Amino acid sequence: MPTTPGTEPRVEARTADHPSAESGPDARFGRRALLTGGAAGAGIGAVLGIGAALGIPALRDATSGAGAGGSGGSGSTGTNGGDGSDPTVIDAAGFGGESLPCHGAHQAGVMTAPVAHARYVAYTLRPESDRAALARMFRILTGDIEGLTSGRAPLADPEPELAARPSNLTITIGVGPELVRRIDASRVPEWLAPLPAFERDRLDGRHDGGDLLVLLQADDPLPLAHAARMLERDLRSFADVRWSQQGFRQARGAEPNGTTMRNLMGQVDGTINPAPVDEDFASLVWIGSGDDRGDQPTWVHGGSALVLRRIRMQLDTWDMVDRPGREQTIGRTLADGSPLTGGDEHTPVDFEATNANGLPVIPSYAHVRRAHSTDPSERIFRRSTNYDEGGESGLLFACYQRDPLAQFVPIQRRLDELDLLNEWVEHTGSAVFAILPGFTPDTGLGDTLLA
Amino acid sequence: MPTTPGTEPRVEARTADHPSAESGPDARFGRRALLTGGAAGAGIGAVLGIGAALGIPALRDATSGAGAGGSGGSGSTGTNGGDGSDPTVIDAAGFGGESLPCHGAHQAGVMTAPVAHARYVAYTLRPESDRAALARMFRILTGDIEGLTSGRAPLADPEPELAARPSNLTITIGVGPELVRRIDASRVPEWLAPLPAFERDRLDGRHDGGDLLVLLQADDPLPLAHAARMLERDLRSFADVRWSQQGFRQARGAEPNGTTMRNLMGQVDGTINPAPVDEDFASLVWIGSGDDRGDQPTWVHGGSALVLRRIRMQLDTWDMVDRPGREQTIGRTLADGSPLTGGDEHTPVDFEATNANGLPVIPSYAHVRRAHSTDPSERIFRRSTNYDEGGESGLLFACYQRDPLAQFVPIQRRLDELDLLNEWVEHTGSAVFAILPGFTPDTGLGDTLLA
Repeated sequence: MPTTPGTEPRVEARTADHPSAESGPDARFGRRALLTGGAAGAGIGAVLGIGAALGIPALRDATSGAGAGGSGGSGSTGTNGGDGSDPTVIDAAGFGGESLPCHGAHQAGVMTAPVAHARYVAYTLRPESDRAALARMFRILTGDIEGLTSGRAPLADPEPELAARPSNLTITIGVGPELVRRIDASRVPEWLAPLPAFERDRLDGRHDGGDLLVLLQADDPLPLAHAARMLERDLRSFADVRWSQQGFRQARGAEPNGTTMRNLMGQVDGTINPAPVDEDFASLVWIGSGDDRGDQPTWVHGGSALVLRRIRMQLDTWDMVDRPGREQTIGRTLADGSPLTGGDEHTPVDFEATNANGLPVIPSYAHVRRAHSTDPSERIFRRSTNYDEGGESGLLFACYQRDPLAQFVPIQRRLDELDLLNEWVEHTGSAVFAILPGFTPDTGLGDTLLA
Repeated sequence: MPTTPGTEPRVEARTADHPSAESGPDARFGRRALLTGGAAGAGIGAVLGIGAALGIPALRDATSGAGAGGSGGSGSTGTNGGDGSDPTVIDAAGFGGESLPCHGAHQAGVMTAPVAHARYVAYTLRPESDRAALARMFRILTGDIEGLTSGRAPLADPEPELAARPSNLTITIGVGPELVRRIDASRVPEWLAPLPAFERDRLDGRHDGGDLLVLLQADDPLPLAHAARMLERDLRSFADVRWSQQGFRQARGAEPNGTTMRNLMGQVDGTINPAPVDEDFASLVWIGSGDDRGDQPTWVHGGSALVLRRIRMQLDTWDMVDRPGREQTIGRTLADGSPLTGGDEHTPVDFEATNANGLPVIPSYAHVRRAHSTDPSERIFRRSTNYDEGGESGLLFACYQRDPLAQFVPIQRRLDELDLLNEWVEHTGSAVFAILPGFTPDTGLGDTLLA
């Protein structure tokens, strides 16, 4: 990192926004809040009020959370138990200061609004990591997550400046069957195991399974990279990294808020998805809630089941298919994701519609038809990201549910049997984790498992 | 990519912003402009006016280019010959529609304002790629760059929707010595060769050299990934990918505009840097301009010399050094990058200052002292990004100059000899490329080389 020598240093832009050297974390935030949080925050709110009065939704979209949160406080005193999507604004000068509460009935990062960057890091427990060690590990994880997601670096963090602007960082912890077995082998849920094999699986062993999952998500890759490294450092005496996968969506602010992401095949991806505000969301996603059958161990109540599939795209051959052919493969237009049976992106697909020749408009092999179920309990909450590294492109398909065997597996079985899209995708990685229930200032991650 | 089945599709947010299926690229832009560009753009401008009148710089920062550009036109009619940092606004609903002109005396992507994501892709020419083939290749590259950077996908692009929102995408082309030799061996500049070996180099052969460089930069990783793939596809019959490296800075909008980036060691990185508005910028960076000695081949006049070094950071041992030790290693504070001799980030370093014991405040081994030169022509224009993949973290150090042997090499030699930072970094990759001069609607990339 050579510094350009020069007798006249250049001022491209001056900012006095960084924390000062001599003050601790709290003083730092106090000072920043004083400098920028108060007045500027109120200003933004005032101008947003004007924008809203003028009926200009674009402005609300462009500044998003900065207006929605509005409290301007420096702490994360809320919980994510509600819709979990309103960030707390620490600093109005850029969204870097936005943070999401990590406490609540459920962990953050599942039903919080999608952010731009995600990293999944799976660990293999060391042989010596017994119950007592795991209890220590969860205590450390709990403190690290409280610090890193709030912008107050944990005490042992040597680079607090890289943690000070969390950009809606969430850290979500999942466990694999081996971790549960080390605590109590009788409490491993039936579904917490490798998925049943699918005919078309091409798992290469590089992104399968794991004993512990750390899922980091943020709108900025810098605090995410720093947090991932801090956790890796603190986990080192308990577990080794097994694999790591990085995903992305369109950048924060590039599209109007709420725009459904596009995948690297060019498709609008994720349109039909339960929403956290839905009446049946909890019973689909959160274990032990709603009309749950009650046959799951209590330690995972308030948690969820994550299925992560690495889906490699064969984009070179996909590109050779003409546009109508690609649209028929999916059942939706490439332009805006609307069903081939008409309407806009969010219009329901009409599976009965026929064309002038009496043939179905949505072909029998179309992805949307194969993925569709008439059983409303057979639904999943998708939260995928794109990946593109090492000369390989695809989708990190992620979905949350109460029971993968009852929700993801029947969907994937239908796709596995007959989905024209299979010609251009292959599943090369597969993992299932139990997302732990949430925690509060008075409890910790893993408490219910260790109880 | 299973679609969640469900009888009641969910509306998380409705947008009618995507191009319609039946219209071509131009109609698409016309329609989008009609829907969102006009009215919303005016609205943003109006509200920004209010914000500015109230003296709220944060709002201007948060919406940045959307307000600065303001023309709301759908084309990129300007050139990047000026300061090149004001994006043209295509669509006010998010910055995705911003595009930068690719035409000008110099290629875009060098002195254009730093964006969030960068990808360097180096190619090795195929044996059969002779002068005639290279002429075809440059024609294809020229058209692809004009299309992809403006948001109008090239005709052969099967996924125009992934190109429609360029997010300030720039594509910058460099050439290595072998490519020049295939056209005219007598015209290879002396500096267009592997750098002289440095004592502490630890080049592992995975990120060295190359015959052709494609540098893609954008504020959104999605159009960047798509453009990289389109170019790889179109280059396939001429060259094979040799290596690819991805870099990032803080996300667009996370920090106030103009904030100097931080690297993964936590340092403010890149403070002292010539600025495109400086009087001597051109003579430092653009070959054949200012007081250039005139000994460089004319084909590279208007171009520049890029040095790219992959610098791996040993963050685990770096973290073990206490904070004063890390600050003394650099000569600047970690908090805000100000020199240890006082002031703010942009205050000149006082190399003569001594402490109470009569010792220099900036130690003899400090990075800033070793990088500093009293010769003002011995300066470089830095444009680095962070990398963090495959369990490895560091800096993709990039710098532009007229002549690396006269500018980068003396700096790096001083650092190589004595820079305490060497204890925690190692250079594992090294490449030098000649950045071609710019092109206009009437000329093409490589014209001067092929003339």
